[in-house]
Amino acid sequence: MKKILLIILDGLGDRPSPELGNRTPLQAANKKNINALASRGMVGLFEPISPGIRPGSDTAHLSILGYDPYKVYTGRGPFEALGLGMDLKPGDIAFRGNFATVDKNLKVIDRRAGRIDTGTDKLASSLNIEIDGINIMVKEGVEHRAGVVFRGDGLSPNVSDVDPHQENVFVQASKPLDNGAKKTAEVLNKFTKKSYEILDQHPVNIERKKQGKNPANILLTRGAGIVPKLDNFNEKYGLKSACVVGVPLISGICKLAGIIPIMVPGATGTTNTNMQNKVKYAIDAFKTYDFLLMNIKATDVAGHDGNAMLKKQMIEKADIALEPILDLLDEITVMITGDHSTPCTVKDHTGDPLPVLISTKGIRSDGIEEWNEISASRGSLRITGRDVINVLLNYSDRAEKFGA
Amino acid sequence: MKKILLIILDGLGDRPSPELGNRTPLQAANKKNINALASRGMVGLFEPISPGIRPGSDTAHLSILGYDPYKVYTGRGPFEALGLGMDLKPGDIAFRGNFATVDKNLKVIDRRAGRIDTGTDKLASSLNIEIDGINIMVKEGVEHRAGVVFRGDGLSPNVSDVDPHQENVFVQASKPLDNGAKKTAEVLNKFTKKSYEILDQHPVNIERKKQGKNPANILLTRGAGIVPKLDNFNEKYGLKSACVVGVPLISGICKLAGIIPIMVPGATGTTNTNMQNKVKYAIDAFKTYDFLLMNIKATDVAGHDGNAMLKKQMIEKADIALEPILDLLDEITVMITGDHSTPCTVKDHTGDPLPVLISTKGIRSDGIEEWNEISASRGSLRITGRDVINVLLNYSDRAEKFGA
Repeated sequence: MKKILLIILDGLGDRPSPELGNRTPLQAANKKNINALASRGMVGLFEPISPGIRPGSDTAHLSILGYDPYKVYTGRGPFEALGLGMDLKPGDIAFRGNFATVDKNLKVIDRRAGRIDTGTDKLASSLNIEIDGINIMVKEGVEHRAGVVFRGDGLSPNVSDVDPHQENVFVQASKPLDNGAKKTAEVLNKFTKKSYEILDQHPVNIERKKQGKNPANILLTRGAGIVPKLDNFNEKYGLKSACVVGVPLISGICKLAGIIPIMVPGATGTTNTNMQNKVKYAIDAFKTYDFLLMNIKATDVAGHDGNAMLKKQMIEKADIALEPILDLLDEITVMITGDHSTPCTVKDHTGDPLPVLISTKGIRSDGIEEWNEISASRGSLRITGRDVINVLLNYSDRAEKFGA
Repeated sequence: MKKILLIILDGLGDRPSPELGNRTPLQAANKKNINALASRGMVGLFEPISPGIRPGSDTAHLSILGYDPYKVYTGRGPFEALGLGMDLKPGDIAFRGNFATVDKNLKVIDRRAGRIDTGTDKLASSLNIEIDGINIMVKEGVEHRAGVVFRGDGLSPNVSDVDPHQENVFVQASKPLDNGAKKTAEVLNKFTKKSYEILDQHPVNIERKKQGKNPANILLTRGAGIVPKLDNFNEKYGLKSACVVGVPLISGICKLAGIIPIMVPGATGTTNTNMQNKVKYAIDAFKTYDFLLMNIKATDVAGHDGNAMLKKQMIEKADIALEPILDLLDEITVMITGDHSTPCTVKDHTGDPLPVLISTKGIRSDGIEEWNEISASRGSLRITGRDVINVLLNYSDRAEKFGA
């Protein structure tokens, strides 16, 4: 049995970029180590969910880890809260929140409170309160954004939004969408009123009013969802699992699945990340763990920036960092792919297929010497997210036989 | 409309073998006839169940014949009994059995009765009895192993094992796992007790005791499963179907599906099988039948033995035997693939994809002149087990239009 290393170069897939001579960043990149892994193994194309579906990083990682995103992804609230590093438990109800400006009749003046960008940490912590036995946790995000989590008994995600989604109308009373959601709607309405009482008098807002800025005097919630109970990944696949992941959204999903995040000094979740440290810690983790998920976010960041040259450089940086893996193929089965495409010409996720490679000692070689979106299509693999773990178990001699 | 010949070279897929110059047996084999079929048709890769899943021959053949193995494969008992050549009917409950040694208090001394290897046929036939209207059939397998079948009304597979799965503990009373299984557990417990009474006094065991060997004085059962009712293959697809299959497990599955096994002189289910006779009988069967499944087990046997040179020779032997097919492509649509990979370097089934080819007059040619695991990936087919019959119906001009 071999150890398993699953490397997700976030947003890896791309389309031709004019500044790279109409090549993709992966086609343009010098990547001798990745090419060596590819040429010794099997390559092909990968659909994170299914052809044409534009995945988020969250739904793609859920799918890659063997969960059906259509079943476990019930709303953005929980996943945005995970992305803010909030510590969620199955059964928690989470909302997306906006710090907004209302008048004293709770008519919405500004849904973004002047795109407030300082002091939201203090506003958020003032709202960590208890209402009717429900513990409420609020965490600030970028600008006016926040995550809101309700924890306690008898909660349901089936409530309508408080946020009216437009200005010059009144804050909405949340309504239960079924009989089981009455309590949640009640607590949510009390919380919304309370958020006005607390925030309107908050020193941060008193100061904003003095400066003639819109006060962030209410928290408007929307997108309720329940934190899913994911079947334990380790029990399901007979693995001891860890991850080396710089972004809270993905490490949060891993935690829900029972995959232990390993903290790596210098891993930042952006383009200045210390990839060599990530690989070093990953290899070291195999002393304790059988399965390691590594996510490298830098490629996706460059894609969202539309910076094809930077994305090419991030692939090259990853290639250098991955050199030690080449000497470990007797003991490790490695797969490299991405969670979705983030073409620099689009600056956002697309549903284009991604290249994938799997490499280890003794595996068939497809004889593809240069690995990219185009050449990979001449290899043997055609897999989707739900196949990934099964394929890795097979090529690490860990799969159980189904039948006789 | 053409006749359909589906040839399963059992365990065909492989990985590079050092003794074949790091080629697979299929890559190394001289196979001019198979290559001629491939070059006149379409080739590609085949997943018997889904990527990475390690199939048994039973689950793979179920999938290939259009049955969902996750629905119809309820336990190993029925399929092991089929493998012993027992004649099962839908609704029968089958168990895996061990002849074991117990003391007079029914404490297990030896779960394998000294790996008894003679006389088990006599022991098994002494246990073909009736209890409370349930007919019990026992058939010996290799060494201490046996198949046990219960036939009658009101039976259920939801009973716990009698076999304690360890030694120096007492034989377990089978418990019903739901209300519908009370009768089955009762009969099973009576049968277990009866098996001790019959076997402990059996001449085979009196002789063993004289020789100082552990008597095979009880039959311990486990792995209860119900023989599934498979939708009739012929009705489902509008075919008259037969099979030429040397191994009881696969011919047993065919019988459950309504596919008639044809006995072929010299077909042994192992490496000395008379492949030319199998092909001769198959061609002859097309006078009566539309669809013929041929399974050639020899390739799998060589794979389990880890004998890459032998596997190559078995492919070459099949290639010679298949020569008459080349002249029949006006009338026959032929597919060649395997039910799973059995790499000689692994000596067991793996979830690696398999090469597949389909050939007949008038079909597109992918222009692949040499057919193997690697070259096939450059062809047009990417199919799974559940696609096989549909694809064959299509290329034999038998598929019904779905829609207008």
